[in-house]
Amino acid sequence: MTDLLPHHDGSPLHVSNDAPALDDVVRVRLRVPAGYGPLAAVRTRSNPDHEPEWTEAERIGAADGWDWWEAPVTVRNPRHGYRFLLQHADGRIEWLNQTGIHRGETLDAEDFALVAEPAAPAWLHESVMYQVFPDRFARSAQADQHPTPDWAIPADWDTPVDPVMPGRAHQFYGGDLPGVIEHLDHLVELGVNLLYLTPVFPAASNHRYDASSFFGVDPLLGGDGAYADLIEQAHARGIRVIGDLTSNHSGDRHEWFRAAYGHRGAPEQEFYYFTNAGNTEYECWLGARSLPKFDWSSAELRERFITGEDSVVAHWLKAPFGADGWRVDVANMTGRLGAIDLNPEVRRLLRDTVRRISPDAILLGESTNDATSDLQGDGWHGAMTYPSFTRPAWGWLSEPTGEPYLTAEGEEHTEAWFFGMPTGGIPRYTAREFVDAVVRFTGGIPWRVRLGNMQPLDTHDTARFATNAAPGTIPVAVGLSMTLPGVPVVFAGDEFALTGADGEASRTPIPWGTEQDPGVAERIALYRDLVGMRRAHPVLGTGGLRWLHVDDECVVFVRESAAQSVLVLAARGDADLELPPGAVAGAAAAGAQFGEALFGEAMLAVASDGAVALTAEGPAFAAWALPGVAVPARP
Amino acid sequence: MTDLLPHHDGSPLHVSNDAPALDDVVRVRLRVPAGYGPLAAVRTRSNPDHEPEWTEAERIGAADGWDWWEAPVTVRNPRHGYRFLLQHADGRIEWLNQTGIHRGETLDAEDFALVAEPAAPAWLHESVMYQVFPDRFARSAQADQHPTPDWAIPADWDTPVDPVMPGRAHQFYGGDLPGVIEHLDHLVELGVNLLYLTPVFPAASNHRYDASSFFGVDPLLGGDGAYADLIEQAHARGIRVIGDLTSNHSGDRHEWFRAAYGHRGAPEQEFYYFTNAGNTEYECWLGARSLPKFDWSSAELRERFITGEDSVVAHWLKAPFGADGWRVDVANMTGRLGAIDLNPEVRRLLRDTVRRISPDAILLGESTNDATSDLQGDGWHGAMTYPSFTRPAWGWLSEPTGEPYLTAEGEEHTEAWFFGMPTGGIPRYTAREFVDAVVRFTGGIPWRVRLGNMQPLDTHDTARFATNAAPGTIPVAVGLSMTLPGVPVVFAGDEFALTGADGEASRTPIPWGTEQDPGVAERIALYRDLVGMRRAHPVLGTGGLRWLHVDDECVVFVRESAAQSVLVLAARGDADLELPPGAVAGAAAAGAQFGEALFGEAMLAVASDGAVALTAEGPAFAAWALPGVAVPARP
Repeated sequence: MTDLLPHHDGSPLHVSNDAPALDDVVRVRLRVPAGYGPLAAVRTRSNPDHEPEWTEAERIGAADGWDWWEAPVTVRNPRHGYRFLLQHADGRIEWLNQTGIHRGETLDAEDFALVAEPAAPAWLHESVMYQVFPDRFARSAQADQHPTPDWAIPADWDTPVDPVMPGRAHQFYGGDLPGVIEHLDHLVELGVNLLYLTPVFPAASNHRYDASSFFGVDPLLGGDGAYADLIEQAHARGIRVIGDLTSNHSGDRHEWFRAAYGHRGAPEQEFYYFTNAGNTEYECWLGARSLPKFDWSSAELRERFITGEDSVVAHWLKAPFGADGWRVDVANMTGRLGAIDLNPEVRRLLRDTVRRISPDAILLGESTNDATSDLQGDGWHGAMTYPSFTRPAWGWLSEPTGEPYLTAEGEEHTEAWFFGMPTGGIPRYTAREFVDAVVRFTGGIPWRVRLGNMQPLDTHDTARFATNAAPGTIPVAVGLSMTLPGVPVVFAGDEFALTGADGEASRTPIPWGTEQDPGVAERIALYRDLVGMRRAHPVLGTGGLRWLHVDDECVVFVRESAAQSVLVLAARGDADLELPPGAVAGAAAAGAQFGEALFGEAMLAVASDGAVALTAEGPAFAAWALPGVAVPARP
Repeated sequence: MTDLLPHHDGSPLHVSNDAPALDDVVRVRLRVPAGYGPLAAVRTRSNPDHEPEWTEAERIGAADGWDWWEAPVTVRNPRHGYRFLLQHADGRIEWLNQTGIHRGETLDAEDFALVAEPAAPAWLHESVMYQVFPDRFARSAQADQHPTPDWAIPADWDTPVDPVMPGRAHQFYGGDLPGVIEHLDHLVELGVNLLYLTPVFPAASNHRYDASSFFGVDPLLGGDGAYADLIEQAHARGIRVIGDLTSNHSGDRHEWFRAAYGHRGAPEQEFYYFTNAGNTEYECWLGARSLPKFDWSSAELRERFITGEDSVVAHWLKAPFGADGWRVDVANMTGRLGAIDLNPEVRRLLRDTVRRISPDAILLGESTNDATSDLQGDGWHGAMTYPSFTRPAWGWLSEPTGEPYLTAEGEEHTEAWFFGMPTGGIPRYTAREFVDAVVRFTGGIPWRVRLGNMQPLDTHDTARFATNAAPGTIPVAVGLSMTLPGVPVVFAGDEFALTGADGEASRTPIPWGTEQDPGVAERIALYRDLVGMRRAHPVLGTGGLRWLHVDDECVVFVRESAAQSVLVLAARGDADLELPPGAVAGAAAAGAQFGEALFGEAMLAVASDGAVALTAEGPAFAAWALPGVAVPARP
């Protein structure tokens, strides 16, 4: 695929207002390659209240080898879908939606979409996230002063992680928040500017998802004071901080659950789904009795957790803490049980509360599979989700090692699972299949929400990407996470070249002091360079996305705005390809001076007609800064 | 595409219970061609409460060249999606969902789906619908006794239809219900067994969608008595009858609207969206002031229209009428306005009321574009919808004539629109594109609901298919409507070979007395034969669907049950193809005796290895009865 195609996306080049109110008129623009064939008409098709509405586009002019068309779209529903209809002079028609150009009619679900709901704060799109699992990040001297709790199996910092229960949940390294503070300059050095901490509540496990209260920071981590300090010191360095909260369940040691368990008539009884008269049987997360599920039909739970002045959600966003938002665990299951689905209500309440308490705070939801249904702009600003980037990147760039590892029950496995799927290991994708997956799992999500989706290579719940990365592909994978639309995420330790064959094994304590080891130094430099590139080029946050070339080995795309563009080449095998004249802005005019190399070893050469040749020995990741895109003024 | 592929659908061959309750375990079966390659494992992946759940399939045996696998699926949500994961012995994986086989991960929206909601009555799937537009069907002698109403422009039965306002809405031919009764034997002769009447309420237009009351039958049509008579006499002939009701709006002459219009404080004021203090401005259907939109937040409207003992919905289902259900007009927009979406509530209320009053009645909703979002089994038993059959059939089988016709405003048009879309005429599809569209627009709808979708070639709202049919394709189109999964629909007049270039021109009065004219007699015989074939073969109602061959000119598929199968060939051009051994059940064993020809001129020949050769001169439609499918017993 190297032919140029008509293009539209939700970015400012193409949409006059990406945060409209209901009834606003947004002008949407379509660009069509000059040689695409004469068009008799271009129209938009919206579907307000589920009935089609059409507008006519006018051709506003040409620039740099492209014709630009513009049409008004009146935003009539909170999620207002639209698509383009191209009518060729020869009678052929084509439709353009979020999955591309189609000859046949297309699904409503894959329309472009404007969202008339409160938008995420702009800083989300300027952020590179750094994820920290507190028990394993850094242990301060203060940690030695805490007595070991009853549930913990103490481990030295260099002890291997035990993936088998009870060590799996109870092995305790004693990382703490003062430890995080001590290493904030490491984050500054990497260039990340958004710290995401997994839970810091008191609990009876190393992961702390089984909180016993939501109203305090675990003393083992340094308590409330350390948390406030951390946020203050992070802010002083330009780093925002978000917490991690589970809206699907609490731990069975949680104060609310203890008040209700076995106590018929307790006010907190309605917070959970008790199934017997004695309040001893209850619904829980995937059958885990330690994680009783919340019943969101309870008004009192809504008040205490979300909407009240002193709610859990509000407490940590306010002084003295002032956290910058929440990542919500198990957001996908929240409020859902059999015939019950309160999820849309809960995510809206969460969004409205976050916005009321702190308009500048973000709300991300965990939804690790197809998140489309929940990401229509009415709640989460984005998701921690894997099928739209993480898993496709693994599928394309991995080379499974076949080394066995142990399951939670101690059974030996040979790469039988992949992100919780019994696929017999990592699927093998071509570059084309990687792109197909990215398109498929973003095709149903409004552009603005897609930009808020987290784009990790791995997290505390997954194996580490480096474990199975094919030789030379780590820069490709990290580079893609920094340049495709979404919020890049560095899971602490990836920059130390850590590996880990599952979500438990990947929770290795950070090997502080190895920063100068050659392998680690190189990896840290890689992250620093790519994070720096992302942050230096805002177009990588909010610019449009056009795929320019896809074959089995190689992907080329460009992120674009009026101010600048970044051209990206990602290849597993060798690349030797030519982008046709007009593919990217300004090539013909600039000639040999075209493109400022930002990263990578690839070669870029411009022919006199403006065709751009790209060559590289794979695996390769390369990026170039290009001029911005000229849009003709309306006549 | 002629290779055999693994197959599953929601039919009884593959699903042990297609009307399960929550928490029931349904056994789902996958059939895999014997030569497909050794499989290490087959699994199902469900997504209860939006979190994946896996079950393991066991191979239950082989039959007729196919391996059968079976797995339990516990129905945990009212719409319970599932897909299959096939793990090959060589490590490759594949996913199977409603859109077919995929190497990459698939969208939740395209999962197979079990529905734990009340099912449509079984008779819906045994029905062939006949649609009558009362003013144009037949005029009895009694009609002469009615004075012409003030709004009407009387027309003789053989006057051409006037497509321009005011004639468009007010031209009045005076067809009535006694006229329908007089011609019920015509329906019997055709073999149809479900009569759908567009509205019969008193109104001020020939289409009667602007009802002045929902509690009486227009005296011009013969009044309540004629309606009761019609239903009784239809029932006596084995023909069921459904009415047409608009839940989106009423007419501006409707008694409720008159009570509220200009009368601040009237109880009916809350039934509509009045936008000024004087109750003279209001929301209406697509800006048509004669059709004020209902506000379904009104409890009183819900009571009077749906839930009350004497509601509109109940009134006509009860004695003395006993109608067999409703087709609901503008179902897609009902309850939707800007940020408001009460549609799911309203469709559930409608379904629950219909079921309470008459458990054997059906509820169909008009949703003429992508109906996926509203057809998840929680309301409508099916839809009058066009993108999943009607429009693709037109795209493949039409040859636009280019004759101009007049718009509602009297402007001359040359096939500029297509089903309300400004596509510059009818798009041109290949057979493959026809199939792609059918798959795309049914891929998100649970099988059971898909079976209830209406499958018309045209309706009172569209041009007639014959107007632009390519020579020889009418049997192909009618044949497909009778054999693909869905409810076949004959729009009265199609069997008289009527044409009409838009939804107005297609409302030509039925030319009674022309039945013996050669062209008409042949067309009536075509419908009689194909309707008869459909009704004689229940597998065409509820059997599975496997595509066996698709190319640019030709489609071959089979409908299957344990009792019988029907093989279908539909071709626009010549067909000369071979289905591989094992493609259909029993070929090798039966040899030359294979297949009972049901319709059409095509040739079917069986080679000794069981390969089936099909040849035909196009356009062609042919069908053969085949043995049922053997499923191995569970070991």
